[in-house]
Amino acid sequence: MKKALVFDIGGTKIYSTTVDKNGKILSEIEKFSTPKNADEIKDLLKNVISKYENSVDAIAIATAGAVNNENTGLLGSTGNMPAGYEKTDFQLLSKKKVYIENDANAAAWAEHKIGASKGTKYSVMLTFGTGVGGGIILDNKLYKGKSGAAGEMHFKLRNDKKRKCTCGAWDCYEIYASGTGLKLTAEEITGNKDITTYDVINGLKNSDSKMAEVFNRWQEDILDGLIGLGNIFDPEVIVLSGSMGEFLDEKYLEDEVNKEIVTTPLKVKKASAGNYSGMIGAGLLALESLNNG
Amino acid sequence: MKKALVFDIGGTKIYSTTVDKNGKILSEIEKFSTPKNADEIKDLLKNVISKYENSVDAIAIATAGAVNNENTGLLGSTGNMPAGYEKTDFQLLSKKKVYIENDANAAAWAEHKIGASKGTKYSVMLTFGTGVGGGIILDNKLYKGKSGAAGEMHFKLRNDKKRKCTCGAWDCYEIYASGTGLKLTAEEITGNKDITTYDVINGLKNSDSKMAEVFNRWQEDILDGLIGLGNIFDPEVIVLSGSMGEFLDEKYLEDEVNKEIVTTPLKVKKASAGNYSGMIGAGLLALESLNNG
Repeated sequence: MKKALVFDIGGTKIYSTTVDKNGKILSEIEKFSTPKNADEIKDLLKNVISKYENSVDAIAIATAGAVNNENTGLLGSTGNMPAGYEKTDFQLLSKKKVYIENDANAAAWAEHKIGASKGTKYSVMLTFGTGVGGGIILDNKLYKGKSGAAGEMHFKLRNDKKRKCTCGAWDCYEIYASGTGLKLTAEEITGNKDITTYDVINGLKNSDSKMAEVFNRWQEDILDGLIGLGNIFDPEVIVLSGSMGEFLDEKYLEDEVNKEIVTTPLKVKKASAGNYSGMIGAGLLALESLNNG
Repeated sequence: MKKALVFDIGGTKIYSTTVDKNGKILSEIEKFSTPKNADEIKDLLKNVISKYENSVDAIAIATAGAVNNENTGLLGSTGNMPAGYEKTDFQLLSKKKVYIENDANAAAWAEHKIGASKGTKYSVMLTFGTGVGGGIILDNKLYKGKSGAAGEMHFKLRNDKKRKCTCGAWDCYEIYASGTGLKLTAEEITGNKDITTYDVINGLKNSDSKMAEVFNRWQEDILDGLIGLGNIFDPEVIVLSGSMGEFLDEKYLEDEVNKEIVTTPLKVKKASAGNYSGMIGAGLLALESLNNG
């Protein structure tokens, strides 16, 4: 069965493994700290690729940052990656084509093929971590927009200029719905600048009413975004993913979304393709592209 | 050249004419007051159709309300149409297939084929009137979602529950960006409950600084939605349409959107397919469907 060497490149860690065309992970996950400059990232990738490229059919990278529609490189920089990373010529890393996709898009594709949105044609996946990522599947295809940058979950949820988003704009969904947003909500409600998202989640588990209030306000902000996406896309399912997504109450969110939307009922589900869904999705996309090429 | 008999069915007026496959209007526009009950609407349509059906190749209807993906009927009711209208069996009106599309979707298609978004693959059209309508073209196709109801511009712009939208939810884009929203903004700023959108537009033209303040605040709300849509869809162009859309400053909006989005630069343009773009778009879609059928 055809298989791909796959990477997940983030701001703090780089992961690598091999996957087959059913999305099964075939080898041990290798884990590296993300080097502090772009050339060292390139060297790290090149080193791993040189070891495996002759034994795989495709090479695929799930990465932070927007990826072009040709899946060959990045469109621009992201704040948590070293300067110059966006100019990396990934195609020079191997004699084989190196297939690149945005990490949230790749993870959404894994959910579509083997996870929570399997069997649907229209889905939106949101990844709640330090920030908020998005991946949109329309009519069984990853939606990328005119350049490849679509699916950025930066839409305004307020107009009071209280929170500035990492994107530079005010009042974005991301700065309310992310883990960063949860911490800010906790600070606002408790007045404690040192409070962490862990404190909130832990307090919630221990029936701390203040922490429950913080959590619920955060979840209401997340809900507001789901309502908008339900009305704009009329999807079959919205998938909740990421380290912070696992704490959400998908049954509550599904009920509330369906009370408010003017389109047709949708499902809200937790992601189920696992922690390495970015690598799996990138691998699946790269292997599928071989058949289409 | 093939031609279609076309209708535009709204809450107050019904229009009818014939168009060819280039989107050219071929006959005088007929205009009727929308009857107060659903059976009378059906009778009116049937009467016009019986006169023209033998001399046209297709029959097309642009209508208020969400239309199914088969373009055969409505998915549900809208507030401004008579009770039961949504159950109309349009296919019984003629021996020919009667092609139905939502009016904003049809108008977006006219812009895509002969208007402001001609030559682009990815566009979002917003119609600013009493409410806000939306039509989304992705990869040269009208985007309709799983059921046909996609493109509803009901996403939250606030969370303060000050304005309830016609959709029943609080804080929607529509209740800020619509003509209704402009009137509410004017009431809030001036304290005058009797102020009209005409007063605002007229005051703006006469350099009334208070009316300019009202208008600008309304336009900022519209801008906030454009930023979100730019980030979510990464479109080539956002088209501003409708009776209230003509007053917007598209150059200002384009500059500001491009300052704030994290995707790639887009254009903001006024609609250019004319007042009957709904009928034209519905006619074009119906005639195109003949070729694909």
